[in-house]
Amino acid sequence: VAIVLAVGCRFMRTLKLTLAYDGTDCVGWQRQAEGVSIQGSLEDALAAFEGAPVTVHGAGRTDAGVHALGQVASVALTASHSTETLQRALNAVLPAAVRVLEVVEEAADFHARFTAVSKVYEYRIVNAPFISPFLYRYAWHVPMPLSLAAMAEAASILTGTHDFAAFQGTGSPVGTTTRTIHRIDWEPGEGPARPLVVRFEGNGFLRHMVRNIVGTLVDVGVGRRAPAGISTILASRDRARAGPTAPAAGLFLVAVLY
Amino acid sequence: VAIVLAVGCRFMRTLKLTLAYDGTDCVGWQRQAEGVSIQGSLEDALAAFEGAPVTVHGAGRTDAGVHALGQVASVALTASHSTETLQRALNAVLPAAVRVLEVVEEAADFHARFTAVSKVYEYRIVNAPFISPFLYRYAWHVPMPLSLAAMAEAASILTGTHDFAAFQGTGSPVGTTTRTIHRIDWEPGEGPARPLVVRFEGNGFLRHMVRNIVGTLVDVGVGRRAPAGISTILASRDRARAGPTAPAAGLFLVAVLY
Repeated sequence: VAIVLAVGCRFMRTLKLTLAYDGTDCVGWQRQAEGVSIQGSLEDALAAFEGAPVTVHGAGRTDAGVHALGQVASVALTASHSTETLQRALNAVLPAAVRVLEVVEEAADFHARFTAVSKVYEYRIVNAPFISPFLYRYAWHVPMPLSLAAMAEAASILTGTHDFAAFQGTGSPVGTTTRTIHRIDWEPGEGPARPLVVRFEGNGFLRHMVRNIVGTLVDVGVGRRAPAGISTILASRDRARAGPTAPAAGLFLVAVLY
Repeated sequence: VAIVLAVGCRFMRTLKLTLAYDGTDCVGWQRQAEGVSIQGSLEDALAAFEGAPVTVHGAGRTDAGVHALGQVASVALTASHSTETLQRALNAVLPAAVRVLEVVEEAADFHARFTAVSKVYEYRIVNAPFISPFLYRYAWHVPMPLSLAAMAEAASILTGTHDFAAFQGTGSPVGTTTRTIHRIDWEPGEGPARPLVVRFEGNGFLRHMVRNIVGTLVDVGVGRRAPAGISTILASRDRARAGPTAPAAGLFLVAVLY
């Protein structure tokens, strides 16, 4: 009985981990049967401290090939190491493609996904005849000239609260497909080494939503679709109406706001 | 006889190719028996146009893992395609890690290596407790605090015309080991994602010279050596007196001037 009580009394802390990763060679956030996942790498590393299995919750389940500059994860641990020690120790054992930028203590009810208020994603496009050898893992190469004005017009229709069912990856049902995109910002690119950056901030994003929106915006940018057609796509709630899914390599989870 | 004459009359052009490459997965500039080399990739691609073997000369024979933002190569061709067509066609068949930034016609006596007047190299160091997952292929991670003042003092001793035998990679004899470093510039870094950049411009660099200088400068920066010791190293002409060879990943051939 004494032993059970002692175990029961171990202090459980909730930690918030901020992460950056190069998703190129990863199977994505979520642990899979095979391949390097961010969740799996973190859980394996943390289990060594805890001396027991550990579950790490991510704010967003990024797909294979998607990158992060500020993914957030939460984890409950009894291990009493300082946050600095944990960060240093994690970075010493994680693959070089995954770095822990910060570890902070949070209230017990903090949850990386459920507590999140909004998320910021960036999608990078190199709009030039060729793409820098240092960017092909980190941007979509679109050689055809793009009309940013047309793309911005289409983006303005997507901003706000809408049913984004038409932009949801197939086979990924969720309760509601209504989301709010607070803003879509643009940073113009130039030449093969400076990508056009499209920045999305919203209260949540459906599976493949950013990539499906970007694929549709590029259709508009090259003149395959009219900007006004976006309203029809939204109203249809039909994935087949929207454009192709932009490649994973161009997508970055930039920040999660709480 | 008529056929021989016709071949003999084909117009031979000299082309200058400016190249960028991510050296991470390459065996280096020079063609090797195995592995992807920049020279080999270019020669194979150009031979398809020429219908005959082609020899490409590089301004600098970068080692395995070393990158280029502005390597220059020269090649003599009889193929009559426009420079734009050649550039586009090369970029269509070369590995994504190698891009042709520009193709221009040059005088018959142009030679990428022998005509070069000076070269610019950059060496990138991330001086922070950890390194961004997007930079570990492109910078040397030095976690110990560096004194830039001490490094700059050491660098000032290296600037100018010296016998750099002590900074030459072993087993790479050349006629003279005297070179002139015109300038060593500094761009301070900050945190895990912004590297310290050390920029070298000189009339030529011995094998491993930049990396051996950087290894020695970092020795000075962390306090393992005094800046004034550089004079002794230069005078010794002894490779064993200088510091370690900095990793290939941090080195970029930035430009070749003619």
